[in-house]
Amino acid sequence: MISVIEARDAILDQVRPLGTERVDLFSAMDRVLAEDVYATRNQPPWDNSAMDGFAVRAADTRSASPTHPVTLQIIEDLPAGYRAKNKVESGQAIHIMTGAPVPEGADAILRSEITERLDTHHVQVFQPTSTGVDLRRVGEDITDGDLLFPAGTLIRPAEIGLLASTNRAYISVYRRPRVAVLSTGDEIIDIDDEMEDGKIVDSNGYTLSALVLDAGAEVIRLGICHDTQEALEQKLREGLSSDVIITSGGVSVGEYDFVKSALEALGTTMEFWKVAMTPGRPLAFGMIQDTLAFGLPGNPVASMVTFELFTRPVLLKMQGYTHLYRPSVRAILLEDIKKVSGRKQFIRMQLQRRENLIYASRTGAQGSGILRSMSLADGLAITHEDQEFLKAGDEIEVMLLGGLGDLSRQRNC
Amino acid sequence: MISVIEARDAILDQVRPLGTERVDLFSAMDRVLAEDVYATRNQPPWDNSAMDGFAVRAADTRSASPTHPVTLQIIEDLPAGYRAKNKVESGQAIHIMTGAPVPEGADAILRSEITERLDTHHVQVFQPTSTGVDLRRVGEDITDGDLLFPAGTLIRPAEIGLLASTNRAYISVYRRPRVAVLSTGDEIIDIDDEMEDGKIVDSNGYTLSALVLDAGAEVIRLGICHDTQEALEQKLREGLSSDVIITSGGVSVGEYDFVKSALEALGTTMEFWKVAMTPGRPLAFGMIQDTLAFGLPGNPVASMVTFELFTRPVLLKMQGYTHLYRPSVRAILLEDIKKVSGRKQFIRMQLQRRENLIYASRTGAQGSGILRSMSLADGLAITHEDQEFLKAGDEIEVMLLGGLGDLSRQRNC
Repeated sequence: MISVIEARDAILDQVRPLGTERVDLFSAMDRVLAEDVYATRNQPPWDNSAMDGFAVRAADTRSASPTHPVTLQIIEDLPAGYRAKNKVESGQAIHIMTGAPVPEGADAILRSEITERLDTHHVQVFQPTSTGVDLRRVGEDITDGDLLFPAGTLIRPAEIGLLASTNRAYISVYRRPRVAVLSTGDEIIDIDDEMEDGKIVDSNGYTLSALVLDAGAEVIRLGICHDTQEALEQKLREGLSSDVIITSGGVSVGEYDFVKSALEALGTTMEFWKVAMTPGRPLAFGMIQDTLAFGLPGNPVASMVTFELFTRPVLLKMQGYTHLYRPSVRAILLEDIKKVSGRKQFIRMQLQRRENLIYASRTGAQGSGILRSMSLADGLAITHEDQEFLKAGDEIEVMLLGGLGDLSRQRNC
Repeated sequence: MISVIEARDAILDQVRPLGTERVDLFSAMDRVLAEDVYATRNQPPWDNSAMDGFAVRAADTRSASPTHPVTLQIIEDLPAGYRAKNKVESGQAIHIMTGAPVPEGADAILRSEITERLDTHHVQVFQPTSTGVDLRRVGEDITDGDLLFPAGTLIRPAEIGLLASTNRAYISVYRRPRVAVLSTGDEIIDIDDEMEDGKIVDSNGYTLSALVLDAGAEVIRLGICHDTQEALEQKLREGLSSDVIITSGGVSVGEYDFVKSALEALGTTMEFWKVAMTPGRPLAFGMIQDTLAFGLPGNPVASMVTFELFTRPVLLKMQGYTHLYRPSVRAILLEDIKKVSGRKQFIRMQLQRRENLIYASRTGAQGSGILRSMSLADGLAITHEDQEFLKAGDEIEVMLLGGLGDLSRQRNC
């Protein structure tokens, strides 16, 4: 048997980011930048006002106080978007809007709240200011020529705004992997096939395709393949135009499992592992020509858990991400659990937050055919191979499955 | 001034989930179910084998031991997907694959590992088993007629698999809000407009549109509107076919701000608040006919923070979510911070995880024009209005901004 970490490291060692593509800013959302982006201008492009108020010479306000206000002459009203026509001389002020360029001669902004406009041409100042107050300096957000974002940056809304403000409409990002998903087994029928005795409707094809999409990749649904080596080889060949092929079922020891032989017939580097984990012991991994192939187990829960541990990090690495693993939280276990000895068991957990602590309890029966146990789960408790018991009150590590919904406070501010 | 929570509660009080639409399973991903879904069959549909092995009568194995194995007669080989032709009588076994229906007469499965096949017709058993071992019972995952998912369930990959397995190809979910985004200000030009002195490129329109998409909503980009009341009213009217209108800029006290008067001219219920927060004090909110309108401040950071606090929960509630707020984590502050007194300050924070603790430090200068401070941020520290200082070593609450990337351990199992 091979450990989970050994298997994962061996797999990830073979994976590099895929090629790149140029996309518009909104299509770049949640993707990874594949080029260094340099600023092509200062942002802001000039000193400008941080407030609605008056552009003045700070020295003129030195003696101002509520009882002895200083009166300045208003020589111009300046909206944002325009340059002042006049220079501010000693004793003068220009009425200025937020964002407008600071007029020549002025070195501070008096916010409206600390002034009183007497009439069209005069304003009273009730407290002194200093050079630079309520000014935004040229280039304080972005400086022309600076490296704005290095390759590898994750593009989120703030990055999109910054890219727009430096006039970038298209950027280069790592492309999404194309992932072919195939369900195998004579007992499997599709959602709209007529029901026959002995058959069950495919769930793995749907679950795994959804997981692929959730990992930011594109899915090609190859459908269902029955258990003959010819049919399987044919379907797998169809998948070779993809970056990744994922099959479910047919990798255990049964004599009727043809996936192993079909994979072997096509590829030269397949590994058939027994991973020291539960659910999900059997796992096939390797290359078929230039396509990475995963043979995941057929049990619904086992196929999801092995996807989470082995396939998802691969799809993220292909897209240039450096954080490949689901976040985890520490939680306090609410029940005693006897675990499977000698294997790393991933126990489906419901989490709840009370005050500042998180508590974990099992999502009912943990059979690897019981998909409902995953549906109810917020995360997977990660156990050690050599543990035999977990006790109520133990602090455990729980890998989160998408979202912290139930862990957020109802009112987080 | 109104508090952040008062403002948010007043806004959310006016919001209900929007209508529903029927979508295919993959389009339902991350959306909220708007109907109760009942199971239309048992899953599994019959007792079946959880293992590759032999279907037997448990009583026949009672005396089996490594030194005194019991020998059974193999009467049939049964792949998954088919019914056995024969009944298992005492002393007999049927070779069975994982997932195959349990043959009549059998009440347990002997996994291959604890048996040895002697020849085509005989198998030796080395330990006893009990009734029900390694059987999956009919309906143990889903029982026909049960409420599979109540309305309000968030659809994730496991739900998609379960829906498929009960033959549901289309389901009813809450529809996505349509959100019109408008940037205002004479100083704003678009990304591909010619640069003029005194102008800056719109970033808010891009940032806010990206935030709308990130919240699962559809965006209608109305572009930029210059500061005349007629132009603004015209643009706002265009937005009335949307569920929500978001403007940025023009809601502070400046005499050149026409958004307020244009909103007032169109709507009867607009509120113009000064919220006790920083960044982001001025906020307009109300209804224009059937459209919710948000007037967000024009400063890039202030517009993002007010979107996060006020608009994002609205967009989530419209889609039927019940967890409306970003999750938060407790973090240990790494520096002293003097905060703005009397307002709830949202300080942009970088987070790092060391062992089981999370540490927080500021993302450089916190000016509300400095969008880079949001780009670098993992979250916003939430402070109390009456705090004046935060000290290094204090435990603070940090609202996460999308993802726990840097908080995950490099190896979470």
